[in-house]
Amino acid sequence: MKGLLIVISGPSGAGKGTICKALMNESDFWISVSATTRNPRQGEIDGVNYHFLTKEEFKKKIDIDDFLEYAEVYGNYYGTPKSRALQAIESGKDVILEIDIQGALKVKESYPEGVFIFILPPSMEELKNRIINRGSETPESLMTRFKSAYKEINYVSKYNYAVVNDKVEDAVKKIQSIIVAERCRVDRVKDKILDSKEGIIHEQLYD
Amino acid sequence: MKGLLIVISGPSGAGKGTICKALMNESDFWISVSATTRNPRQGEIDGVNYHFLTKEEFKKKIDIDDFLEYAEVYGNYYGTPKSRALQAIESGKDVILEIDIQGALKVKESYPEGVFIFILPPSMEELKNRIINRGSETPESLMTRFKSAYKEINYVSKYNYAVVNDKVEDAVKKIQSIIVAERCRVDRVKDKILDSKEGIIHEQLYD
Repeated sequence: MKGLLIVISGPSGAGKGTICKALMNESDFWISVSATTRNPRQGEIDGVNYHFLTKEEFKKKIDIDDFLEYAEVYGNYYGTPKSRALQAIESGKDVILEIDIQGALKVKESYPEGVFIFILPPSMEELKNRIINRGSETPESLMTRFKSAYKEINYVSKYNYAVVNDKVEDAVKKIQSIIVAERCRVDRVKDKILDSKEGIIHEQLYD
Repeated sequence: MKGLLIVISGPSGAGKGTICKALMNESDFWISVSATTRNPRQGEIDGVNYHFLTKEEFKKKIDIDDFLEYAEVYGNYYGTPKSRALQAIESGKDVILEIDIQGALKVKESYPEGVFIFILPPSMEELKNRIINRGSETPESLMTRFKSAYKEINYVSKYNYAVVNDKVEDAVKKIQSIIVAERCRVDRVKDKILDSKEGIIHEQLYD
């Protein structure tokens, strides 16, 4: 069976990153590492948190069509490397993308069979606190981020699932359930079921 | 939040009944008990396995539109009592229906927002063994049931999910994941999210 493309998205401050780290610790996913031209924050590691590229390097990759999506946000480029993610999916691996809303909507255009999960903060107040506590923003960029996060919640309707990030472990359990459920969706398995009706359904379905 | 109507369906011998009993033991569902005019099998209890009705009683209920669906199968009537199931859903309870394919497709017409789960036997061979081992069939009705079960697998494409009943506990876990995932589906929660954007999202969403 082909892997799933699981897109973890939502406004900044909702906790996408924490959730993805926790998911990564619990299961064997292929994690898509984004490319970006922004400067590394303290503690961020090249190739782990992001592939940090120069603008020139990034633009070269755009030219050879090696992004599943890319966008300019707050003056920097962000993008999702394409070919390796698709190879992992074809080989049966579930791929996790942690991505902002602009990016997720572009991925949805090019890969609509992905599983699009919108992470919600427990409240707008909490969202504000989380953005403040991150401590790596100027007051101006903080307000920009908060206003943008507030508007972005409207995009939830473009997603398949909404998960409230109240407790990280609960959000992770919900996402794990979503993955199990998606693997049972008839749209994904019906060809295999009907092809293998004569044989042993189970082996055909889950090999 | 409104409850879910979870429809557990599939060919006879796939193990719908065993799965529903196991689900019932693990969580607090409202179990819809079907009405039927067939004779009780050994050990079946009125009001638990089925509401056993006379044909006259059954037809009276048809006249007052008190079935979510009903059908004649192998010369007997089977039906799903309507009003109590819908009341339970409105009050926030998840309702489980264990129902044959004919019935499930009729429920889907009247209640498309239900969660339609098709239970598959691990193989056609195993399906035959299960029907034989049930031991309550004549050889003729056994062949009728087996042929019908074989054809019925094509109906999987009308369902939302397919779950292979290889090990009951695995099938039950998958169904529990499906229920968690469905409660996160944007189609079901987006109005609450957008209505409560100004307030505390979490409380509005899960109260």
